[in-house]
This record gives sequence, structure tokens and C-alpha cells, in this order.
Amino acid sequence: MRECMDALATAYRDAAEGAALNGRRSDMLTRTVRPDAVYCLKLVGGVVPSLGIGSLRLNSDILTFPETDGKRRKVKVPAAPGERWVGLVLLFSTETGEPLAIFPDGVVQRFRVGGASGLAVRHLAREDARVAAIIGTGWQAGAQAMAVAVARPLDEIRCYSPNPESRSRFAQEMTAQLGVRVVPAASPEAAVKGADVVLCATNSLQPVLRREWLEPGMHVGSIRDRELPPEVLKAVDRVIIHDPDNMGSDHLVIAKGVEYREGTKEIVTDPELAALARAPSLAELVAGKVPGRSRPDEITCFLNYHGVGYQFAATGAVLYAKARAAGAGRELPGEWFTETVHP
Amino acid sequence: MRECMDALATAYRDAAEGAALNGRRSDMLTRTVRPDAVYCLKLVGGVVPSLGIGSLRLNSDILTFPETDGKRRKVKVPAAPGERWVGLVLLFSTETGEPLAIFPDGVVQRFRVGGASGLAVRHLAREDARVAAIIGTGWQAGAQAMAVAVARPLDEIRCYSPNPESRSRFAQEMTAQLGVRVVPAASPEAAVKGADVVLCATNSLQPVLRREWLEPGMHVGSIRDRELPPEVLKAVDRVIIHDPDNMGSDHLVIAKGVEYREGTKEIVTDPELAALARAPSLAELVAGKVPGRSRPDEITCFLNYHGVGYQFAATGAVLYAKARAAGAGRELPGEWFTETVHP
Repeated sequence: MRECMDALATAYRDAAEGAALNGRRSDMLTRTVRPDAVYCLKLVGGVVPSLGIGSLRLNSDILTFPETDGKRRKVKVPAAPGERWVGLVLLFSTETGEPLAIFPDGVVQRFRVGGASGLAVRHLAREDARVAAIIGTGWQAGAQAMAVAVARPLDEIRCYSPNPESRSRFAQEMTAQLGVRVVPAASPEAAVKGADVVLCATNSLQPVLRREWLEPGMHVGSIRDRELPPEVLKAVDRVIIHDPDNMGSDHLVIAKGVEYREGTKEIVTDPELAALARAPSLAELVAGKVPGRSRPDEITCFLNYHGVGYQFAATGAVLYAKARAAGAGRELPGEWFTETVHP
Repeated sequence: MRECMDALATAYRDAAEGAALNGRRSDMLTRTVRPDAVYCLKLVGGVVPSLGIGSLRLNSDILTFPETDGKRRKVKVPAAPGERWVGLVLLFSTETGEPLAIFPDGVVQRFRVGGASGLAVRHLAREDARVAAIIGTGWQAGAQAMAVAVARPLDEIRCYSPNPESRSRFAQEMTAQLGVRVVPAASPEAAVKGADVVLCATNSLQPVLRREWLEPGMHVGSIRDRELPPEVLKAVDRVIIHDPDNMGSDHLVIAKGVEYREGTKEIVTDPELAALARAPSLAELVAGKVPGRSRPDEITCFLNYHGVGYQFAATGAVLYAKARAAGAGRELPGEWFTETVHP
């Protein structure tokens, strides 16, 4: 995670100079065989010239939208043989153009989300932050815990999930992995109370943080735009967004007759909150174009919504270098993936 | 080529119904190690539900811009090991999401360009067309010859290149391949005179067709927007464009300080010609939403500029089926390209 955060910092600095590129994202949705499902092909590219890497991240998903408590939830069905999901990252050399690697996206996906949250903690949390709260105990929550532990020398991480077993398991596993005491909290309020950093990483359709739980000097992070209710966003002193390109929905290419709501984007319907789309970006923060925390009692907030293409070039570069060093993976002939014909 | 044209026809019919999708194209340009070159990562996706295929086409290119006769020309440098280019197509199942194939793009690239031109010939050329002229004798010109020979039972194809050796070689090779007499012409005018179908497939920076060479009842095609001068476009009776999405340049994501001109798009600076961006599309023509040729003496024109993402799903589906039937290619474990982790 430390190496991913460093590579991501390089990427964001490149981006702040206009050198790293976030490709135009494209989510294509059309019918599949199952009448209650939708096929979605999702592509995003990125290039980080200082790392010499171009990247593509793609997902080829069968989506369903079951209703829970009257609300539709998006579920990716593991419909590939062996009940598996399909997400891939491809890396290319910006020097020769050649393909360097192809691998599933799941691991780098959470490292890039966690790494971005970790960089925000590095720049926005108090230097003396020692207690973190993680709301959520799933796959993404694990990466948030790794990242905050890299960004600050922590004494304690509290974790909360509505499921007591999940929070116990998470506490045990992450304590062993991070060498930091991770303790389950009986309520989100108990997790947050007195914490210096609060990171939300849930699949919740409902807000997970309340305005009255905010304390002076806190840093708050969120990876999904339902997690923080409007009153929390209005109550914090400063907001940093991931990338202004990510606040719209022009990446959607939807077949006629396909019903699809992402269940996000609600943020932009409130004019006061819509202004957040013009808040400073993580790239500007990491590159020092906007200042980090200004006062010990400031409440800061990082909205880590949606991906930026070049995050996969950065975290992929770390994975690739480590795989090469460890002799992991399988070497395939380069000629299979290049051509003598002018394309 | 016949199978590709049939698959493309399915794709265009899906597109006309809003079911096939052309993803948002993204061309990312930033610096590379060579100071006189630019790195370009190009992505476009597509889905054809009636074929059950989603596709991605990508190019990872090192571009240079040498000057010839005072004009800058875009040259893709084969910079990958073994002096090779990097272009790939990935295919996915819309039923399971699983990856089906990955292969270099060069061959399907020309079949999709040729196939689209062939469909236009099928709908716009006179039924009794027996003589075709191909301006250009390169890689793309070969696919144009294949396509026109599928679309109409030809007596003769004339070919022209400024290089006499190229046109002789092309004539000889294509005669053998197509079973149609292909003859070299000493001038473009000689090739065009009396031809029923004229297809331009060159790398020329200058127009290759003159207004005074147009004859009643001709069908004209072009794969690059420098080939037909404005006066030709104004003189023809009907124009069909490939896709209205392809007439702009919003797909370009260019790093700060990188100088890049595509050398195309000139068409849209002339208001009269800019209206062509609203001309009927090939999808509308193939689906019968706009009529084909209306009179024997009508001069028709198809502008086959730029790619549409779903063309790679269609031509790729043909290649994939043929490769499976022939036992060609290499079977790789599906688990390498899928995952148990929710992405």
C-alpha cells in the first residue's frame, strides 16, 4: 500500500501538470440473455508518463437490480464459468507501446481506492492523528485500513459493521495484517467518537455518518456518494473531490429500452452541493496547488467517488514490478499481442 | 468478407434500433521518451447484442509527425520489440461476461473498414454495376476490392497507385484472390472513367478524385476525409455518413504541451459541408430507415470515416468463430482472465 500510495502520488502530480491523462470513460449497457439482467461493458484508460505506463481497466458484467426494502440495488452476477467476475487491467509501455501485463482488476481496484483515500489522509488529517474509524468491514474497508495505517502512525483503528461477526473477523484479520490494534465497535457512533480520521467504505444505500458525530479536527472520507448525507457535506469546513471529470454521467451509453439508474449522482441535484463539483481535486492537493489542512480544528473531507483511469497505471505499475521481481505470473510471447501489419 | 459484411449488417441493424452500442472513444496523447514522438493510447468499445458479443479495440502507438512537402504526416512507429505495432481486439460474451478472445487488430481492422464500404455499395450502387475502380493499392485498398466484389458480380476492377509497381502487384494478387479481373490503370482518371463504383482507400494528403470525373449513376466511397475535395462532396446527389458520433473530435484527451493535429476534421469548417454531419448514417441505410439508391443516374457517396466500436464486435465474432472451427489460436485458461473477487 505504501508503494501504491507513492506511485499514485506520482500519477496525481503528473495529472496536476496536465501530463497524466484520464481517458474518457465509457459504460455501455445493453440487453443480455437473462431478461431481468443487463450487460455492461465498462472501459477506462489512463497514462502516467513519469511511470512510463499506459493502462486500461475494463469490466464485463452481468448486472441485476434486485429490490431490498423497496430500493433497487445493483448486483454484479458472477456469470463467467466457475461463478467468476470479469474485470481486467492491461498495461502498456509508453516508450515502445508494447503490452506489459494483463491481470484481474480486483486487487489493484481496492489498492487504488484505498491509496487515494490514504493520500487524502496524508494531506488533510492532523499530523498527530492516532485513532481512525472505518465504517464498513468489506473488501474496500480493508484497503482503507491499510492506507490510513500508512499515512499516520496509528494507535488504534475502530471498525463498524451492522454484522457483529463481520466486524470481529475484520478486527482480527486487520490487527494481524497491519500490526495496529483494530477493535470492533458496537455502533457507528462509538467507532467515530473521538476518532481523528473517519473513513466510510460501505455498500450502504443509506447515509452512514451523522452530522452530530462530526468533531473539530476530524478528517472524513467516503468512497460512495450515499454514505455522507447532504448535512454532513454542508457541515465540513473543506471538501476535496477526486476529479471534476467524475461528477457527471456522460460516460453512460445505454441501449434503447434498457432501464438503468446508477443510484448515485444524487449529489448534483442540490444546487449547494452541486458546487462541490468545482471543489479542488486530489491531484491539486497532492501536487501542492491547493493547501492541505490549515488549522488543527478544521473538519476536512475527501470524496473518493468513482475511478480515474490513471490510478490503474500507477497501482498496476507497482503490481507489475513486484510480480516481475517475484517471478509471479506467466510469461506469454510478446508476438501474440503485437503485429507486423500496420493497424 | 461476405461473412463480415453479414455480421456488420446485423450490427448496423441493431444500432439503428438503439440496441448495438458504440462506446465513447478515447484517444489519450502524452509524452514518450523520444522527444520528437507522442505516445497515444486509443480505446473504443462496442456491443452487438444480436451477436452476443462485446468488444474492445485498443491501440498503443508511438506517433511521429514527419514533414513531407511542407505537410505533417502522422506515422505510427513500430517501436515494440521486433519492430512491431500494438493493436488488440478483446471479445466478451454478453451472456456470461467472460472473455472469449484476444487478437491483433490489423486484419479485422481492414475487414471492418472494407465491410462497411461493401454494405454501402450493396445499398447505394446500381444493381447492374459491373466495373469498379479502387484508388489506392495498399492494405485498406485490398479490403475495398474484396468488399465490392462481394456486393456486386463484377466484370472488372481497375486499380490506381502513383507507383506503377504497386498497382501491378495489387492487380496480380487481387485477380488471383478474387477471381475477378483486376487491371492497373495508368492514371486515376483512367481508372474512374466509366466505372460504376469508385472506392478511394489511400493515405493521400491531397484529394484523389476530381469533380469532373464524376459520372451519372456512380457510387463513390472514401475512407479518409482528405480524399474527396469539397467540390466532389457538393456535387454528389446523396451522402451517407458512417456515424454522426464520428464527425467531432471530443474523443481527444491531450496532455498539456503536446502538439497534435489529426490532419482530418477539415470537413466541418465549411458550413455547407458541416451539414453532412447530419446526413443519414450507414446504420439507418442498412436497416432500411432511409432508402437506398433512388434513380439509376443518381450519384451516391459513402463517407467511411473513423471507426464505430461495434464493428469490432461484428468482424471479431466472425474471426472468432472461424478460429474456433479451424482450431487456430491458443487456448488459455479462463481463470487467468476472470476473478473470484468482486471487482
